Amino acid sequence: MADTEKSAEFMLLAINEAKKGEGFTHPNPLVGAVLVKDGIVLATGYHHRYGDLHAERDCLKNAREKGVDTKGATMYVTLEPCCHTGKQPPCTNAIIEAGIARVVIGSRDPNNLVNGKGVEQLKAAGIEVVQDFLKEECDKLNEVFFYYITHKMPYVILKYAMTADGRTATVSGKSKWITGEKARENVHRTRASVAAVMTGIGTVKADDPLLTCRLDDGKEHHQPERIVIDTNLEIPEESALVKSAKTSKVTVIYGFFNPHTSDRREWLFHQGVETASFSLDEKHRINIKEVLEYLASIGIDSILVESGGELAASVLPFANEVHAYVAPKIFGGVSDIRVPIRGDGVDSPDDAVQFSLLGVEQFGDDVLLKYKRGAGGEV
Amino acid sequence: MADTEKSAEFMLLAINEAKKGEGFTHPNPLVGAVLVKDGIVLATGYHHRYGDLHAERDCLKNAREKGVDTKGATMYVTLEPCCHTGKQPPCTNAIIEAGIARVVIGSRDPNNLVNGKGVEQLKAAGIEVVQDFLKEECDKLNEVFFYYITHKMPYVILKYAMTADGRTATVSGKSKWITGEKARENVHRTRASVAAVMTGIGTVKADDPLLTCRLDDGKEHHQPERIVIDTNLEIPEESALVKSAKTSKVTVIYGFFNPHTSDRREWLFHQGVETASFSLDEKHRINIKEVLEYLASIGIDSILVESGGELAASVLPFANEVHAYVAPKIFGGVSDIRVPIRGDGVDSPDDAVQFSLLGVEQFGDDVLLKYKRGAGGEV
Repeated sequence: MADTEKSAEFMLLAINEAKKGEGFTHPNPLVGAVLVKDGIVLATGYHHRYGDLHAERDCLKNAREKGVDTKGATMYVTLEPCCHTGKQPPCTNAIIEAGIARVVIGSRDPNNLVNGKGVEQLKAAGIEVVQDFLKEECDKLNEVFFYYITHKMPYVILKYAMTADGRTATVSGKSKWITGEKARENVHRTRASVAAVMTGIGTVKADDPLLTCRLDDGKEHHQPERIVIDTNLEIPEESALVKSAKTSKVTVIYGFFNPHTSDRREWLFHQGVETASFSLDEKHRINIKEVLEYLASIGIDSILVESGGELAASVLPFANEVHAYVAPKIFGGVSDIRVPIRGDGVDSPDDAVQFSLLGVEQFGDDVLLKYKRGAGGEV
Repeated sequence: MADTEKSAEFMLLAINEAKKGEGFTHPNPLVGAVLVKDGIVLATGYHHRYGDLHAERDCLKNAREKGVDTKGATMYVTLEPCCHTGKQPPCTNAIIEAGIARVVIGSRDPNNLVNGKGVEQLKAAGIEVVQDFLKEECDKLNEVFFYYITHKMPYVILKYAMTADGRTATVSGKSKWITGEKARENVHRTRASVAAVMTGIGTVKADDPLLTCRLDDGKEHHQPERIVIDTNLEIPEESALVKSAKTSKVTVIYGFFNPHTSDRREWLFHQGVETASFSLDEKHRINIKEVLEYLASIGIDSILVESGGELAASVLPFANEVHAYVAPKIFGGVSDIRVPIRGDGVDSPDDAVQFSLLGVEQFGDDVLLKYKRGAGGEV
């Protein structure tokens, strides 16, 4: 490459473009594109939201609207251009038709329908292709998407708030509030970044949460779908979730053992609440793996789990990240110990579910410990 | 002051000198001194260890040994010079005798025996005195000392290690190890900085800890006294603590209700273990406040508590700092939940024991959350 430093600048610009779609492209990836000729940026573009133009076409459209000549230009794009028809016609065609001379690509598309075929088509049309340029930075944009496409499972973030002595409630069960406003605001930002938020019926009964993204920053935010694990279909008719179901999607997951659920299901249907039933295991618990597979199949690429300790323990084997908020206070007590993860637990420390530290963030005196599945190298 | 910037430099040098005594001056404060004339440092000094020369006399001795003339010089000293005879004669005399023209002082001495009287004596001898110079930085050197002198109680640091889900052991009671080597090494550094380490008989029986400072850095470290809260005087004869009592002090605190303890006390005495008895409350627990007052009275200015959840809960009302190490792993489980703080606990989150975040440190993927008693301003 003639001028790598300048090229890096263009790709970083494309990455910034891509980020503008954050929260709105599920289950599509974030993609940004920049069109350059003679070292000058002609146009930029990005994938705005699911169903809209892909970044390459958005960029070419912007170039056309400006009346610039795209012939012989170089396109920087954070992800390999698609070559198949989905919600949109293939981007490779548009690039070829626009007379682009050179395409510089960041990430490879793990989607089997693309995966190198886009590059082949471009090359066959005589276009020079550079691959893996700032790949790591571009890959970071779409960790969730890559996981989702590769594993056919949602990327799961397990979130909880606890005191400095590891409690999620006092011995009398009270939990409002553990963390301060700034930390809770950050949870709303996380909600805006995922396709769905999941909780359990216990939390619905105890806290009656709305689970929407509510941020006072004047911006429009993506609203995650809301999913309730509710084995016996007990969700209260007067709950905030049911009452808001017509505005923002709510799905209740229940166990299909129960013959008395059909009336209730129908009533929920009329309230705008979707339901889906799953088999139960020997402990009368819904099989969470099946639920996650189902959710992936309907396009849920990422889930934030905000629940009590039992559901959290069921989700733990599938958690890609753990977000533990730690508040600067101590509850203590032994009579009814409330902790973030319950379930069966492990016998030996060596059997612990291992994570590595992704980062530490502070919100006032609350600390967010972000973990990623898998042991770190350092300890 | 003619040249404040240069003066600050001299006081920072004095602060650095003071730090050389870290871990060795208990229950005396850390103090450093710098002697300056015509903008040039003539000599430096510090309080090396309890019983040794005070910083001012150490500094003057070093000046004499170098053969420099101290007449008309300025002394920078991090703490108000003492004017009473303790283990050492008063420093004010030495300063006056050395012909020092000006004394620049950082912290005020909260000790009633000094507290302004040192300054008065210097002024009466015609010496120019500047007070409160870089006071905040100097005060930081001796937070522990100031607390101890003012409250007649040891400065208490409550330390525990837990998993990311707030557990101190698995459901089967296994706890080796929660954190990694680097974090455990840091605990040894903290041990070197306190006068004593305290634990409970439960921890002695379960883990048989030595509680000494063991660091592989080739330096000589202060060894804290070791204190065991052992209501029924059950400390095992073969415990590492008993076996090492002749090398490094061990004190066992027990309840004086028990008529069968005298033989055992005598046996422990012959092993070099000291014992002290205290009254029990209605729940058959030793009154920790009395224990702490007693320890302060025998010169223990600071204590690191490394114990199970019950003793930690008893100590909590007197904890100046909490050091929570959080490991990147999850134990889970409900059958026997082991948590860092037990006791009675609070009913409402509003009644929680409030701390403010002092700092966050990383040791590999382990995180140390350092808290100071009292709510922070920010949340």
